[in-house]
Amino acid sequence: MELLRQKILNEGILPGTDVLKIDSFLNHQIDVSLINECAKAWYSLFKDENITKVMTVEASGIGLACMTAQYFNVPVLFAKKTRSTNISDEYYSAKVVSFTHGQTYRIIASKKYIKENDKILIIDDFLSNGSALKALIALAKAAGADVVGAGIAIEKAFMDGGNDVRRMGYRVESLAKISSIKANGEISFG
Amino acid sequence: MELLRQKILNEGILPGTDVLKIDSFLNHQIDVSLINECAKAWYSLFKDENITKVMTVEASGIGLACMTAQYFNVPVLFAKKTRSTNISDEYYSAKVVSFTHGQTYRIIASKKYIKENDKILIIDDFLSNGSALKALIALAKAAGADVVGAGIAIEKAFMDGGNDVRRMGYRVESLAKISSIKANGEISFG
Repeated sequence: MELLRQKILNEGILPGTDVLKIDSFLNHQIDVSLINECAKAWYSLFKDENITKVMTVEASGIGLACMTAQYFNVPVLFAKKTRSTNISDEYYSAKVVSFTHGQTYRIIASKKYIKENDKILIIDDFLSNGSALKALIALAKAAGADVVGAGIAIEKAFMDGGNDVRRMGYRVESLAKISSIKANGEISFG
Repeated sequence: MELLRQKILNEGILPGTDVLKIDSFLNHQIDVSLINECAKAWYSLFKDENITKVMTVEASGIGLACMTAQYFNVPVLFAKKTRSTNISDEYYSAKVVSFTHGQTYRIIASKKYIKENDKILIIDDFLSNGSALKALIALAKAAGADVVGAGIAIEKAFMDGGNDVRRMGYRVESLAKISSIKANGEISFG
């Protein structure tokens, strides 16, 4: 999506570095008209799939997920992050190894809100090593639900996450695919 | 708002208890058409106030804030929670004592995204002791911004938070005000 690529080029890089920062428009401040355009793009890609629920993980996926769910007219379910390994029987849980922070945590979702007949669209802001996305898929699969695919705002396509998940047989639709970031901050899209 | 009160009556109470649970429609699963109605209600209450930014705190305020910001056509800024007391100079920070979890944490917001000429509407799902709301006000005031008011989905009006903040001179618009919850789970609205 051209609008998102432009936003990344204009605001996404810390000058003189290769650090990608999306906190001016996605994960601290949120450009709501931009995420609405992302939502419309995913709706157009997945509108024939009879989606019954949009899943994401707190926190920065929630805005994108809600805007997207508006078009499908379905609820959102956001998985919660926890450091606890003591998960009650009421929840499905899966482990995430965060690429950004190098930390391990679990995400959980109540068994009440994912059902076998659900057709789930996963939405998230960022895809790097794919750990969060694989964990969301694991929660949905634990309930026997069908994961129709994933809508990602920004994929670091020079990392393995996206292609891992595609090789697992899932449809992953990333609106901006970054193929490289040079040491001077120059970004290429693929 | 009648729709929200009905939702609380139908889904908000754990049978036989006085525990208010909003995870089927606000803070785990999100009923997106319901939060869209909340957003419209706040827009109608604050539409003449020249709002420039909607502020909230992660995680469950984000969906409400994004839906609301759509109508005002302004960005959202969501404050982040941190356990660290070691806050960098780039951030404003304020302490929150959570009523639900009895924990203390800090919320932070980048100085880049709140400016002196901002007119801020704060949005959140829940108001109990008011600690999160007061902390959000503190972040905005630290930047010299004008806090126009707060839109709250559910206020526990039998607690002090809402009236504390009103006494501080802020407009607080709660869409469902719970005046009492009996031990058997019977809810009254005020």
